[in-house]
Amino acid sequence: MRLRLKPRDTRFFDLFSVAGTNIASAVEVLREFVAAPTEARADLAKRMHDAEHAGDDATHDIIEQLDRSFITPFDREDIYRLAVRLDDVIDYMDAAVDLATLYDPEALPDGVGRQVELLEEMAKLTASAMPRLATLRHLTDYWVKINELENEADQVYRRLLTYLFSGELEPLTVMKLKEIIDQLESAADAFEHVADVVHSIAVKES
Amino acid sequence: MRLRLKPRDTRFFDLFSVAGTNIASAVEVLREFVAAPTEARADLAKRMHDAEHAGDDATHDIIEQLDRSFITPFDREDIYRLAVRLDDVIDYMDAAVDLATLYDPEALPDGVGRQVELLEEMAKLTASAMPRLATLRHLTDYWVKINELENEADQVYRRLLTYLFSGELEPLTVMKLKEIIDQLESAADAFEHVADVVHSIAVKES
Amino acid sequence: MRLRLKPRDTRFFDLFSVAGTNIASAVEVLREFVAAPTEARADLAKRMHDAEHAGDDATHDIIEQLDRSFITPFDREDIYRLAVRLDDVIDYMDAAVDLATLYDPEALPDGVGRQVELLEEMAKLTASAMPRLATLRHLTDYWVKINELENEADQVYRRLLTYLFSGELEPLTVMKLKEIIDQLESAADAFEHVADVVHSIAVKES
Repeated sequence: MRLRLKPRDTRFFDLFSVAGTNIASAVEVLREFVAAPTEARADLAKRMHDAEHAGDDATHDIIEQLDRSFITPFDREDIYRLAVRLDDVIDYMDAAVDLATLYDPEALPDGVGRQVELLEEMAKLTASAMPRLATLRHLTDYWVKINELENEADQVYRRLLTYLFSGELEPLTVMKLKEIIDQLESAADAFEHVADVVHSIAVKES
Repeated sequence: MRLRLKPRDTRFFDLFSVAGTNIASAVEVLREFVAAPTEARADLAKRMHDAEHAGDDATHDIIEQLDRSFITPFDREDIYRLAVRLDDVIDYMDAAVDLATLYDPEALPDGVGRQVELLEEMAKLTASAMPRLATLRHLTDYWVKINELENEADQVYRRLLTYLFSGELEPLTVMKLKEIIDQLESAADAFEHVADVVHSIAVKES
Repeated sequence: MRLRLKPRDTRFFDLFSVAGTNIASAVEVLREFVAAPTEARADLAKRMHDAEHAGDDATHDIIEQLDRSFITPFDREDIYRLAVRLDDVIDYMDAAVDLATLYDPEALPDGVGRQVELLEEMAKLTASAMPRLATLRHLTDYWVKINELENEADQVYRRLLTYLFSGELEPLTVMKLKEIIDQLESAADAFEHVADVVHSIAVKES
């Protein structure tokens, strides 16, 4: 009997790993986007939308699996919440790319590259933490580092605001760039919210 | 014994239906407000505040009922969370109307009408979903459509930002209009959060 | 046996009381900061960062205690959530101070003093509510008053925006001041979220 339950359990961890890997791919597109010349942006925005759709599919698959499962490795609402939080991360990255495509600024401030580097590190940590949900072990490092990276992202964000408000740029340019930078900051926050859900699951199940 | 429990159960669904209907009425006031000439705004703002108070009362009634009930149709904290999330929707609509009354812009951009149309559709779906909490059936359509409408609201919102940042308007006018538009976008997000809570209840109780 | 469980229980309430007292001290620093001449700001910002670190430590202690406890006074995930929400309050106050130090505006608008007064009242209520978690009694007043103060904070915030957008100030000055004021408004919201978690715990455990 116990053996027959195993496949169901594994399914969820596989699906969360897919969602994590998908986020890591989306950050790669984002990294290319912020370094790309303006004429290459439309293509990369299309690739980001594809990643966003893949994210939606991953979330959908997790919730469908939940509907089909009588027994779940941890509480049903926590599985749901983790799926939704993982989805949020890509939504913010996609919004940043979408806004940058709409406003089409000639150049993005240097700090944006640093924001994206931090998102990349957070994505790698998140993707590699997902398979460890199976045992809920060796995750402390994951949420501690995510918190450190999110603090660093806050600092980078504040320095970016200082640059935007320095008087070098036109008010409307400031507002446009701020929208893009805000979405990237929200993506960093969203990674922390994912880590919070994982931490709270670990705390609950331990 | 089972029959005696029924009345308590029905009570909650009735109260959630009241909250849903109240949101639908608030959106009607919002729709009138954004189409009204500036001199009619103060009266409509008053009506919106009344709807906001009615929303507070509905939330309060649900939580009072919770305090009085030993047996609840689903987990106590989920009932609480749903009541709070429903309340958020009206709070954002009321904030939009309040800010528009304070700043008193001569005209609101066209896209605002589209934002409100989408809120109206979301409100109708939400109001008609509330009675279905009793069985937690036939709700899939509800949250799927809310998600689609919220995606469309995001697109409308981004196009509005593009218009605001186009250079046609003064920076301070842009900032004022953005505050109003942001609150309407938050109301759309809040409808999605309500649907998320309903979805997570369905997932948990199924 | 029951007596042996007591010490563990008390531990959590003591730790939450520490977190509450720490928030109350942080608000004192904030109050000094907004009234201080510009040359005194750097020192006060340092004191705020110390309070923020103390907040992190308090959160950390609560979660460590959770890891060590087999029996908890209420659900593990609620203890976790309350610790995280308390931490948010100081994070927003620290962000406000950090941004005000970065932008270094000559004077803050009068309304900011009122924002901080309301935060001070909310902090006192929160600090004095924490020990009452032990019995979950006499808390109704706490969340009702927090809600009233948050509504008042919303009104103060909107009047501040009206002043910022009145045309007296340069657009960039408006944007800088708005960032600071927004963080203080988020701190008020964060106090309400703390009260929401306490209310939802009371509703669940009653």
